[in-house]
Amino acid sequence: MSELKNDLLLKALKGETVSRPPVWMMRQAGRYLPDYIKLREKYDFFTRVETPELACEITLQPVDQVGVDAAIIFSDILVIPQAMGMKVLMEEGKGPLLPNVIKTKADIEALITTEVEERLGYVMAALSLTKKELNGRVPLIGFAGAPWTLLCYMIEGKGSKTFDKAKQFCFTQPELAHALLQKITDVTISYLKAQVNAGADMVQVFDSWSGMLSPADFKLFAQPYLIQIADAVSKHAPVILFPKGSWYALSDLSKSSAAGLGLDWSVTPQLARQMTNNSITLQGNFDPSKLLAPIKQIKKEVTEMIDAFGTQRYIANLGHGILPNVPVDHARAFVDAVKEYGDKSKV
Amino acid sequence: MSELKNDLLLKALKGETVSRPPVWMMRQAGRYLPDYIKLREKYDFFTRVETPELACEITLQPVDQVGVDAAIIFSDILVIPQAMGMKVLMEEGKGPLLPNVIKTKADIEALITTEVEERLGYVMAALSLTKKELNGRVPLIGFAGAPWTLLCYMIEGKGSKTFDKAKQFCFTQPELAHALLQKITDVTISYLKAQVNAGADMVQVFDSWSGMLSPADFKLFAQPYLIQIADAVSKHAPVILFPKGSWYALSDLSKSSAAGLGLDWSVTPQLARQMTNNSITLQGNFDPSKLLAPIKQIKKEVTEMIDAFGTQRYIANLGHGILPNVPVDHARAFVDAVKEYGDKSKV
Repeated sequence: MSELKNDLLLKALKGETVSRPPVWMMRQAGRYLPDYIKLREKYDFFTRVETPELACEITLQPVDQVGVDAAIIFSDILVIPQAMGMKVLMEEGKGPLLPNVIKTKADIEALITTEVEERLGYVMAALSLTKKELNGRVPLIGFAGAPWTLLCYMIEGKGSKTFDKAKQFCFTQPELAHALLQKITDVTISYLKAQVNAGADMVQVFDSWSGMLSPADFKLFAQPYLIQIADAVSKHAPVILFPKGSWYALSDLSKSSAAGLGLDWSVTPQLARQMTNNSITLQGNFDPSKLLAPIKQIKKEVTEMIDAFGTQRYIANLGHGILPNVPVDHARAFVDAVKEYGDKSKV
Repeated sequence: MSELKNDLLLKALKGETVSRPPVWMMRQAGRYLPDYIKLREKYDFFTRVETPELACEITLQPVDQVGVDAAIIFSDILVIPQAMGMKVLMEEGKGPLLPNVIKTKADIEALITTEVEERLGYVMAALSLTKKELNGRVPLIGFAGAPWTLLCYMIEGKGSKTFDKAKQFCFTQPELAHALLQKITDVTISYLKAQVNAGADMVQVFDSWSGMLSPADFKLFAQPYLIQIADAVSKHAPVILFPKGSWYALSDLSKSSAAGLGLDWSVTPQLARQMTNNSITLQGNFDPSKLLAPIKQIKKEVTEMIDAFGTQRYIANLGHGILPNVPVDHARAFVDAVKEYGDKSKV
């Protein structure tokens, strides 16, 4: 393997001194890029995900075209329910549909938990190929959905404003919920380790719906599983936990073995630093809608964000995925502003 | 006007000593009640809203059937955009649609800001009739949408996961955004004062989408208008501000002239009391999905919630509207648990 030419991300995660903060964007390989749209018109979603050459090509697009400091493998969090034996359909622009949801103990017992690496071999192939193609330019990020977020889809069968079916399942049948969460956790740990073996330099765990839970319920149904994953995977590569909306858990999670915590834009940098006692690398938290503002304003607000977080133990990112209607030059302005901040600070 | 036989809500808002906390539920007059469903099958949404006898009947249902300590007038936050001249369609189960959204300065200038009381005469008639029918049993709550939340619908034209069009409007044309927010604010102040004249004992301002804003943007596009409304209307009746998702603003808003602040379930009672320095009445914050849990668990968690908030300067409520799939006896268990807490504390 080639040595990394740009290791800002890994240094920031280790708490080592960096010349400027690294920058990448959640969903950076996606719908705002015209070259991605072209591939989307030719190949359906799971073809793009399951064909290593396509996944690799899509993963590299933002590295080449927007200049981010890391590549994140093009894939989907729902490959885990798939690997566990559930059917997952994806309608373009409509979101996922799992026609046969989990309802009973028997449904949970029937889930497959073995041979994850083999079942998701296409992800490992995409990672290996991308690692090779990157040739050390920037680090490669692997990822998975968090157990609570995957439970949401496995119980609910689709997106929801409230995920009340998933919550009802947890509140009325907590033993079954914990059995399911543990199964997902075990599989996710194997999956993330395999991703590291295949070439991922670090991994991120997306708990996209954790903010639907009260602080007390987060501690029951989300936090223990996030911590298990961080503990198991951190031995192999740095782990970033991103519990969207769960600012209330920042203090607890800062004491976990995770190397970094992702933040959405509802929390100020100052409060996040205070809640985490400056003890962990923070990532975020630009409002994705703000990339629709004029470029001059984007650059001004990125500068203010870095001023507030500081340049060390910090990874510049959005607070959630980039929106499909963001002009590419606005995305580039975001990345450039972080890089220019570095230039400025060297003067 | 008859004197109030149950004035727990108003006492709690004034900070006076109460024997137990008052309790009501957001959207308590709504889809979980079989008698509401029957009326929905006979009359379309705006007929129910615009016919004082129907709005009154719906408003009284939860008082009679669930035993809440307050009635909240059956209406909709989008009557204000309607009164300002915008077309609002409502498809049952699908949410609102505003086919002609605000795009330009001319669109904002064309909005009507006069004669709100007359234009929304049916709301005033419904309030007066309901006040009479209540005959002092419990207080009557009036309400309006907050300017930011109404701007979201007036720009976006419908619900959204991100309200990025509304945000883009604010970020790219802030002068127009502020002109629009000020117009909505002026109309809302007139509207809420008229509601008080018509019989509302207090009013609540729903900022349902304020949590989409970063703390900095909340201070620009939401907070000043909430404070204007609180300042103007508090002279006439107590005001509760409910900026859903904007826990970060609790400290600032506790210093406003509002009598109470609504909370969603992402913030613990302890933190909310701390952020507001115990200086204001707090309302909330039971996770609406938790009403799907077994009754025994609902009662246990309601007791814990009151333990944490304390019985004084507190109004028991959900953290958002009641879900349509909640069994009526679960809603009643929520209300009963608050009342039983009072009984217990007297022993």
